[in-house]
Amino acid sequence: MTDFKQQALDYHSQPVPGKISISLTKPAENARDLALAYSPGVAEPVREIAADPDNAYKYTAKGNTVAVISNGTAILGLGNLGPLASKPVMEGKALLFKRFANIDSFDIEVSHRTTDEFINTVAAIADSFGGINLEDIKAPECFEIEQELKRRCKVPIFHDDQHGTAIVTAAGMLNALEIQGKNLPDCTIVCLGAGAAAIACMELLIKCGAQRERIYMLDRKGVIHTRRDDLNEYKELFANNTDKRTLEDVITGADVFVGVSGANLLSPEALKLMAPNPVVFACSNPDPEIKPELALKERDDLIMATGRSDYPNQVNNVLCFPFIFRGALDVRATSINDEMKVAAVEAIRSLAKEPVPAEVLKSAGVDELEFGPQYIIPKPMDPRLLDKVAKAVAQAAVDSGVAQIPLAK
Amino acid sequence: MTDFKQQALDYHSQPVPGKISISLTKPAENARDLALAYSPGVAEPVREIAADPDNAYKYTAKGNTVAVISNGTAILGLGNLGPLASKPVMEGKALLFKRFANIDSFDIEVSHRTTDEFINTVAAIADSFGGINLEDIKAPECFEIEQELKRRCKVPIFHDDQHGTAIVTAAGMLNALEIQGKNLPDCTIVCLGAGAAAIACMELLIKCGAQRERIYMLDRKGVIHTRRDDLNEYKELFANNTDKRTLEDVITGADVFVGVSGANLLSPEALKLMAPNPVVFACSNPDPEIKPELALKERDDLIMATGRSDYPNQVNNVLCFPFIFRGALDVRATSINDEMKVAAVEAIRSLAKEPVPAEVLKSAGVDELEFGPQYIIPKPMDPRLLDKVAKAVAQAAVDSGVAQIPLAK
Repeated sequence: MTDFKQQALDYHSQPVPGKISISLTKPAENARDLALAYSPGVAEPVREIAADPDNAYKYTAKGNTVAVISNGTAILGLGNLGPLASKPVMEGKALLFKRFANIDSFDIEVSHRTTDEFINTVAAIADSFGGINLEDIKAPECFEIEQELKRRCKVPIFHDDQHGTAIVTAAGMLNALEIQGKNLPDCTIVCLGAGAAAIACMELLIKCGAQRERIYMLDRKGVIHTRRDDLNEYKELFANNTDKRTLEDVITGADVFVGVSGANLLSPEALKLMAPNPVVFACSNPDPEIKPELALKERDDLIMATGRSDYPNQVNNVLCFPFIFRGALDVRATSINDEMKVAAVEAIRSLAKEPVPAEVLKSAGVDELEFGPQYIIPKPMDPRLLDKVAKAVAQAAVDSGVAQIPLAK
Repeated sequence: MTDFKQQALDYHSQPVPGKISISLTKPAENARDLALAYSPGVAEPVREIAADPDNAYKYTAKGNTVAVISNGTAILGLGNLGPLASKPVMEGKALLFKRFANIDSFDIEVSHRTTDEFINTVAAIADSFGGINLEDIKAPECFEIEQELKRRCKVPIFHDDQHGTAIVTAAGMLNALEIQGKNLPDCTIVCLGAGAAAIACMELLIKCGAQRERIYMLDRKGVIHTRRDDLNEYKELFANNTDKRTLEDVITGADVFVGVSGANLLSPEALKLMAPNPVVFACSNPDPEIKPELALKERDDLIMATGRSDYPNQVNNVLCFPFIFRGALDVRATSINDEMKVAAVEAIRSLAKEPVPAEVLKSAGVDELEFGPQYIIPKPMDPRLLDKVAKAVAQAAVDSGVAQIPLAK
């Protein structure tokens, strides 16, 4: 076992198992404290909530709590290993919510036999929380699950593998295209992958102006086209009326490549076929569809992003999910809608255009960061993200009518 | 509104809403930390758990976590106010788990239309935790719910309103009977109340030696007897073949009265009818079945307990639930069985016979506490409870074959 792998295991087991614990936010020292925290004093907030359910936001932790929920059917890149195996990832997500946005978050792993059972379970417990982050749930079930839960629940339901990826990708993409002098509606886009992230990315790019008919999506069998009869309803929306069948076919002359698939699936030869000043987001984790060194050697007019922290332009969901939830919770939004997602895109992309403070340079380990081909998206640990993104999201919630309270000044 | 009620509301809303929050148990400061806590390092514990589910105890917080789960159908003495209204109570329970036994606990409130839906929801999420504490779920559904969940889940399932009350009551009762020179198997017992706590109390006393045919249980309609045709299956087990119909009928010559019903339902006149050296546990909350001042004036040979902190001998579930779970978690017990419950009874009752340290006297606000009619049960904040009860419970788990790991020395 490598040193890093052992460190990762030790991190999870020492000095205590796991990554999160509970803390008390109120005194609990003496009998008086306990008479207020529990019997008989606790009867008072109970009565208040029974009289008006909104009082749960006043007297309980609901309003600052997001549950991270998974069924373990698509854990990282490891596949369907089941709910219990997903627990370290879900605790990690909760850790990130707390660390980046001071959101209290805990994880719940769901065992189920059918999609309906999963939906019923989550719907039954959703009201304990201010929001639900769905995680590592495989496509295509994840689409129906999220849609149905959004329909049934009164709190935001957000599948981060879909929309967090989409939002961060869109933010970086719009900046990259701007630098390359390209207009999104005019771009031919190749999407390698047709799962949760791919579908959500492309749908969001369309909301940002991309043209559906200019998007070529491929799954493991090749180009998704109208003469295929094996497409789920989500892939159907991306079926092109085309004779093109292979990656090489569709990437010839394409402006944009988005990879949400697997390692080394984009060859330098295929990259060569792209239009001038291309943009490549090779987001396969942990190994991208093409190594940046290879890609930039092949095309020096390329702007490139990956999911990795050891290259410039890391597409990392942590740029989005803590802050989109922070904004939603701050105005008690009943959902995270398209307006809020687009607001997050705009806030993230505009932050990359602002001068970078010294502390961010330092923690990124670089001397300078200037908006350009090597810096199209903020660094994951940029502390300005919280304020900028959460505020923009909260405002969008207010403006689009899903906020239950005003944005605090 | 009284001052105390306002204080209780302020306690719950200031300076932040609610009583619990999340803390991180591992570093999360820099990119290195995050690469271990999340992608890519988190893949390592995922693989380990996929290879062996027991590794969840090594790499996640599962082994120290108890979920507090309610459907809000029997909140304190306030009745069926629904899941959201129960949230302050459930957060309070989580606070007590942490405060008294350092167990990480969070609350989940379940909305459901049927008992099966509730059971399915809890069963689907149970494996995320080291144990489940069911709370404020009405009888008679709570019996079926707990039984079915115990059958389906691999972690301890414990309805505290039933068994916590029963265990603490039994501990105090056995001590009281000892002081009064009575033998439990010879005692005639009147139980006023036939809900969750009542059924569980009586069943546990029977396990401790009480005779079922010497127990007279009453519900709102009077004595539970064999000619009634309106009894659920749990009350049926306590139907006496008797002509007695009223409280006065059955309490005449009775040795023990256990009240788990409502205020002022035991009159001084009825108390007068009891056998010499009676024991009265008037546990109705917040107001007992008879005020201690009245009762002790009527019968100076009486030993009395209530649920209140402003009288001696407080029967308080907090004497049990944090510690029975601590013991269960410490040996990864797959359930909390009768042996463990009896071990808790014995540990709690024996602690009351030990000399009381100065700090306990001080926090109880008394100069002395000596085993006798005014001190039959430990004080709720006695710090010796953790060690004594948890160890006894853990040992009983080991001895009865439900422990998955040995008891640490």
